Amino acid sequence: MAEGKKLWGGRFSTPIDPLLEKLNRSIDLDKRLYKEDIQGSKMYAESLKVIGMLTDYECKQIIKGLDKVKEEWDSDKFDIKSSDEDIHTANERRLKELIGEPATKLHVGRSRNDQVITDMKLWMRSSITELSSNLRSLVKTLVTRADREIDVKMPGYTHLQRAQPVRWSHYLLSYAWTLKNDHDSITNLLDKLGASPLGSGALAGNPFPIDREALAHKLGFNSVTKNSMQAVGDRDFCAEFLFYSSMIGIHLSRLAEDLILYSTKEFGFVTISESHSTGSSLMPQKRNPDSLELIRGIGGSLTGQCCGFLTVLKGTPSTYNKDLQCDKEAVFSSYDKLMSIVQLSEGTVRTLHLNSEKCEAALSTDMLATDLAYYLVRKGVAFRDAHGLAGTNRVCNISLFFICLSGRFVGPLSVSHCRNILKVRYRSFSVNHVSHFRLSISLTANAALL
Amino acid sequence: MAEGKKLWGGRFSTPIDPLLEKLNRSIDLDKRLYKEDIQGSKMYAESLKVIGMLTDYECKQIIKGLDKVKEEWDSDKFDIKSSDEDIHTANERRLKELIGEPATKLHVGRSRNDQVITDMKLWMRSSITELSSNLRSLVKTLVTRADREIDVKMPGYTHLQRAQPVRWSHYLLSYAWTLKNDHDSITNLLDKLGASPLGSGALAGNPFPIDREALAHKLGFNSVTKNSMQAVGDRDFCAEFLFYSSMIGIHLSRLAEDLILYSTKEFGFVTISESHSTGSSLMPQKRNPDSLELIRGIGGSLTGQCCGFLTVLKGTPSTYNKDLQCDKEAVFSSYDKLMSIVQLSEGTVRTLHLNSEKCEAALSTDMLATDLAYYLVRKGVAFRDAHGLAGTNRVCNISLFFICLSGRFVGPLSVSHCRNILKVRYRSFSVNHVSHFRLSISLTANAALL
Amino acid sequence: MAEGKKLWGGRFSTPIDPLLEKLNRSIDLDKRLYKEDIQGSKMYAESLKVIGMLTDYECKQIIKGLDKVKEEWDSDKFDIKSSDEDIHTANERRLKELIGEPATKLHVGRSRNDQVITDMKLWMRSSITELSSNLRSLVKTLVTRADREIDVKMPGYTHLQRAQPVRWSHYLLSYAWTLKNDHDSITNLLDKLGASPLGSGALAGNPFPIDREALAHKLGFNSVTKNSMQAVGDRDFCAEFLFYSSMIGIHLSRLAEDLILYSTKEFGFVTISESHSTGSSLMPQKRNPDSLELIRGIGGSLTGQCCGFLTVLKGTPSTYNKDLQCDKEAVFSSYDKLMSIVQLSEGTVRTLHLNSEKCEAALSTDMLATDLAYYLVRKGVAFRDAHGLAGTNRVCNISLFFICLSGRFVGPLSVSHCRNILKVRYRSFSVNHVSHFRLSISLTANAALL
Amino acid sequence: MAEGKKLWGGRFSTPIDPLLEKLNRSIDLDKRLYKEDIQGSKMYAESLKVIGMLTDYECKQIIKGLDKVKEEWDSDKFDIKSSDEDIHTANERRLKELIGEPATKLHVGRSRNDQVITDMKLWMRSSITELSSNLRSLVKTLVTRADREIDVKMPGYTHLQRAQPVRWSHYLLSYAWTLKNDHDSITNLLDKLGASPLGSGALAGNPFPIDREALAHKLGFNSVTKNSMQAVGDRDFCAEFLFYSSMIGIHLSRLAEDLILYSTKEFGFVTISESHSTGSSLMPQKRNPDSLELIRGIGGSLTGQCCGFLTVLKGTPSTYNKDLQCDKEAVFSSYDKLMSIVQLSEGTVRTLHLNSEKCEAALSTDMLATDLAYYLVRKGVAFRDAHGLAGTNRVCNISLFFICLSGRFVGPLSVSHCRNILKVRYRSFSVNHVSHFRLSISLTANAALL
Repeated sequence: MAEGKKLWGGRFSTPIDPLLEKLNRSIDLDKRLYKEDIQGSKMYAESLKVIGMLTDYECKQIIKGLDKVKEEWDSDKFDIKSSDEDIHTANERRLKELIGEPATKLHVGRSRNDQVITDMKLWMRSSITELSSNLRSLVKTLVTRADREIDVKMPGYTHLQRAQPVRWSHYLLSYAWTLKNDHDSITNLLDKLGASPLGSGALAGNPFPIDREALAHKLGFNSVTKNSMQAVGDRDFCAEFLFYSSMIGIHLSRLAEDLILYSTKEFGFVTISESHSTGSSLMPQKRNPDSLELIRGIGGSLTGQCCGFLTVLKGTPSTYNKDLQCDKEAVFSSYDKLMSIVQLSEGTVRTLHLNSEKCEAALSTDMLATDLAYYLVRKGVAFRDAHGLAGTNRVCNISLFFICLSGRFVGPLSVSHCRNILKVRYRSFSVNHVSHFRLSISLTANAALL
Repeated sequence: MAEGKKLWGGRFSTPIDPLLEKLNRSIDLDKRLYKEDIQGSKMYAESLKVIGMLTDYECKQIIKGLDKVKEEWDSDKFDIKSSDEDIHTANERRLKELIGEPATKLHVGRSRNDQVITDMKLWMRSSITELSSNLRSLVKTLVTRADREIDVKMPGYTHLQRAQPVRWSHYLLSYAWTLKNDHDSITNLLDKLGASPLGSGALAGNPFPIDREALAHKLGFNSVTKNSMQAVGDRDFCAEFLFYSSMIGIHLSRLAEDLILYSTKEFGFVTISESHSTGSSLMPQKRNPDSLELIRGIGGSLTGQCCGFLTVLKGTPSTYNKDLQCDKEAVFSSYDKLMSIVQLSEGTVRTLHLNSEKCEAALSTDMLATDLAYYLVRKGVAFRDAHGLAGTNRVCNISLFFICLSGRFVGPLSVSHCRNILKVRYRSFSVNHVSHFRLSISLTANAALL
Repeated sequence: MAEGKKLWGGRFSTPIDPLLEKLNRSIDLDKRLYKEDIQGSKMYAESLKVIGMLTDYECKQIIKGLDKVKEEWDSDKFDIKSSDEDIHTANERRLKELIGEPATKLHVGRSRNDQVITDMKLWMRSSITELSSNLRSLVKTLVTRADREIDVKMPGYTHLQRAQPVRWSHYLLSYAWTLKNDHDSITNLLDKLGASPLGSGALAGNPFPIDREALAHKLGFNSVTKNSMQAVGDRDFCAEFLFYSSMIGIHLSRLAEDLILYSTKEFGFVTISESHSTGSSLMPQKRNPDSLELIRGIGGSLTGQCCGFLTVLKGTPSTYNKDLQCDKEAVFSSYDKLMSIVQLSEGTVRTLHLNSEKCEAALSTDMLATDLAYYLVRKGVAFRDAHGLAGTNRVCNISLFFICLSGRFVGPLSVSHCRNILKVRYRSFSVNHVSHFRLSISLTANAALL
Repeated sequence: MAEGKKLWGGRFSTPIDPLLEKLNRSIDLDKRLYKEDIQGSKMYAESLKVIGMLTDYECKQIIKGLDKVKEEWDSDKFDIKSSDEDIHTANERRLKELIGEPATKLHVGRSRNDQVITDMKLWMRSSITELSSNLRSLVKTLVTRADREIDVKMPGYTHLQRAQPVRWSHYLLSYAWTLKNDHDSITNLLDKLGASPLGSGALAGNPFPIDREALAHKLGFNSVTKNSMQAVGDRDFCAEFLFYSSMIGIHLSRLAEDLILYSTKEFGFVTISESHSTGSSLMPQKRNPDSLELIRGIGGSLTGQCCGFLTVLKGTPSTYNKDLQCDKEAVFSSYDKLMSIVQLSEGTVRTLHLNSEKCEAALSTDMLATDLAYYLVRKGVAFRDAHGLAGTNRVCNISLFFICLSGRFVGPLSVSHCRNILKVRYRSFSVNHVSHFRLSISLTANAALL
């Protein structure tokens, strides 16, 4: 392609190396920003009109032309040329074909440096909204199951060793809370995406007196960035997005890891639905939790995208450097992956079968050792002694245990005594749980409102 | 050491492997939490008293004892024993030595799982406050210099190529803004640290009716965590801290990279103060920007701490697992490094010498090509044509340039015409800058208030 | 799609969730392995024939069919169906369409677990060969330039401060050596890829007495893996590939960083060819080193792929887990990026213009301070004193310097004395350099042989 | 401290900032290199003597003095002064105190740049030897157990679902093989550490005609680095060490993860020895696999050190930059951690109790479905059909299964038929395993030799 056709081709006489052309070209990725790019251009045209850099007629032509370009993209009819470096030049090239000369006036005072970051911020604002909604669905699914299956008890684990009895719903809600926090963190990023960089130019601002504030508001921003050199070199919002994507990925990976364990023959607490598992090409009896393993694996890949982009960012001097172009692959690919695993987690959790009898069968009596220790404490034994005693007795058989206990410390224990200890255990827990549950109700309510 | 002396030694008969003992032992790192641990224990004792698990007298004994333990730490007289696994057991062991039996009642209903996370959150709250203050000092130093040296102009760079003239103060403020954003992000973490996990027990809550809300408020928290399983396995606040530490590290690294360049013989814009550079053992003429290189290097190390901890987190099932103990080395070491480079950046920026004549000598006339293009635009030439023209002419000599220009497009240009173009350039820029500066004033004001 | 059509669909009654189907499906990535997959299948068919599991006729049918499938891929005519999960099932499905029943006998004793790792290893063996060849081209270009421009001197930098004079060729060869080491490291991986995993089955080996050694040799391997459980869960070779890709990326990034600096107006040592730079849409005078910035940025992305995949690997238990499927995106995308930047580096280095007069003009006299110090040492001054003296005198003017020197320590220095000091400097350096150069010659020779 | 006392203090008049001094100071870390530093200096002194830069007497003085310095370090009596920046200056300062003037001649022609990298390479050579030996112990322990417990069968898992029966020894050997590969990779690094950088000076070589080859051989190197600029900026060997440390960390983490699972109540295959587990401060009945969790966690931290250092490296221009000083913390801390977890893994594996009856009880009959399918294949059923059939029948009861089978496809199956199928399974497996075992024997033999 002749360089003369490029936006910047003016003074170049040698054709660009085809390999550089290919690497430099970002249209295959950033065409995803077509809507935002066109929206930004439309509003920018209006700003130019206000200060007399475009006539009314030119501005109308441009807006009409841009709407047409958008229609072509919407209907998948936009014809990308080999000379289209990126979405900005593609849209402008097409606009010129459609409306001629006025198209060339649109870029006045603007640089691709401030244009691309505006597009990215606009895209991220709407994408976060989409992501939040999916996160809420997942939280809602967790809460709904917790509500429905509130009576199922299971072992709670620390160090993957049976620790104390908990409700299945308490377990589910532990992820509901974690993901609700993630939801809040990711929507908080919207605040950080509130300032419009448009008008920062290449790095030194826009020399024409366009009204940046008005332009920002028309695009849905709340304010404008305050320093043009900071604005064009800023990709912190991308890094933050990648980080919180990694965090969500890690949380879903931990959930997946739990459920993979719980769906083993050995635990058997849950059965992954056939719709969310696959078989083996060799072993006919198998049902593999592929959905969960993919979630767990992708969680790791997301972390890599975050780390890699931090490395890219760190290696650049200030303002715009071409390295920043790596933001797109990292952000888009992470977003798509994250959306997939959020949705897949929702489907897997929603459809999994709970084997409640297996859960409860796993509640061995030794898991009451803490409660026993506390029973002794209530009877006046010092906690450290009670702890040692309860541990030493290796509580395998609950009757034996109380007999052994009764003789030495608290006098004969009747069966009703034993039952009493257990009741305290579950009552106190139920009490706690009711408040957890009230919480879940309100969470459902919120989710419904959102 | 006999296991019987450990908090959990009750039922163990074989001594622990010395290597595991060493790795398992976290006291060398977590002794740093002594203040928070004692504060937490004091408030917990009071909560136990309220529900009758401690008598008034026992509670007083405990509090007096804990104050004594704190005094020992404060005055560096606390004697760490080989059997002290961590700060929690060390403090409790010492308390028992000081006050005897009542000490054993303090741990009732509490687990090290909720204790350590409470300590960490308390520590991080006060550490972030300290860090924020240091960040504000750095921002203030940048703003102060920007204010004082507002008249110095220099080349603004994109792609490390001279792009457009900017003010030195505009450059400095680009980092002031970046770091102000970092400051806001890191203080936002305080909100996420607002919920007290105390009362979550090992994973299933506290079986005694302690008033968690009251306890939380006494410790300076705003609320309580809502799910005990989530709370004890949560280290998200550590990951977030590590991430924002990395971001600050990256920003300081980019600043350092710029200043390393600007202090080369070739750029020569700044000279690093002797107090912030070192010499060479071989080459007597050298002055090396070691402070900046250390900042740049440490910026990379911080990133590693973040990535490493994400990997640790990802590899754990839910609730507490011992892997989480890795949080301390990552967080403490990152905090110390970050504080060092924030302070070192402040000192380096404050003491560096600006060679303003060098900055301005670097403003070659070709950097006005954009302004020329816009001049042509104002005269009615289409932007793309103006851009091409301005680029083709390879503006080496400003007079020649205007002569060449005048003949072809806009009629003869007088010297005053030329001056006019330049004036517009600097006026428009000054205008922009005034608002930047007003901004800096208000930022200074804020910094003073904080 | 009906699950019954899948390799493993036998006992499943519920259709798979479309989202899982999409994520689970790796054909879009692993179709890249079609050649290796078909080659593996052909050799496997022959092994089955040897032990009587296939008749001669069936085996011939299969091989003929597979050749036809390969032709379809080669000529881009293979029609991927929505039910094709991966390259293995796609090839088998097509084979069955082409030859019918015998196709179903091919998978006997084999699992996709050992099949995919065989394919990956075969692919990586040939890809590394391709990559090595490109690395050698880059080394050769560096050596050729070093040879041609051996007379150009320039400042050598440490801490980015001018340190001692070096030859431009010495600088170029520093990267030639680095990349030669990379070349050797990456080809060393071939040894690690020498053992064939085929015959490991799903995890417990192949129950039929196929001759694994013979099969391995037919596929170009040297040996067989020794433990089937290790083999199917092994992706270490992928991690190693990603690591050495990152290392090469880092080296090219450091080279790019140097050249970006050297091509600034301020350094001016080199000019990036127009074919390897781009212009600005706003600033007509600019020539941006985009090729180098892309190399630098992509170097960072490669690091992320490595870190991310380590995180994935770490989070899996032993043998095959679906998470391992993430290897493909990481490896393929890294390979493509790495090849691009190796080639782009070669082109950029080959075409860049060296401004030798600028290089030599930068050799300020203070860079001889070390030589002066050593001159004094030869005259009997203790090194630390000589170092201090040479540093204190701030050698700005070489004549002044020698005068100052002559009076105080070594008696009057004639102009020829001065020349002598300088000659020693360059002679000793030349001597060193000749050996470096001999080296480069032999390196060229090697490169030619390869 | 007066800068005048520093190696490079000559021309500096302002005292260094205390914070920079602290950060710049690496003695607390690099004192670990005292032995290597002294060894390097002794050999360097001899090289200087050969070319007449030191007299015989001076050289003897220096060597005697250095031996004395080493003795002080060895006996922990070396007194580090606040002015000791690093191990190089500390040793030289002390040497001067001990022998006076001749000490100042030692640094002639040498720079800390080539000195530190020589020290690091020497240190790493001996550390890798130490590490290899520990890895071999671990492999030996695995092989010894495999040998002793060869008769125990257990479920082999893929996707954490029971897949096919394997031997416990086969499982253990899968890690023996993995770690043997790691052992080979890490010892391969010794080759990369074979070239001595001493004589590279600050970056431009050593101006005196010292015999680098002879010096290299005296220090135990095989050759010399070929390019001085490459040599002083090279930390690739650190990155490679960190990478292979991460890989070993990941493998030990995967092993730990498996054993954590196998030691749950639900699996129950193994019991972690009391010497390698700890209890709970709250729950008296618990035995937590802390050793394994620490191994798993530290595996993640190691990954972070690798990623972080890659980020540091990437952000530097060529030759020496102070950022490279970050190598020490990364390498030393990773080495110590790695050694700990290799040893801890050895101890944990050696002492764990195998519950063989639990392992074998977990061999449910459905795990024979693959074998059944192959039985059908041998009887002439196409594999895909056999696979589907074996899967559909959901083999819960082995007798029922064969009855169901017999009627439909292969004619009545007698009990002996059934036994036959099973025998084939175990025979073929045993056969495979015998070769595995022969392998393990030879591995043991090797391990014994090493």
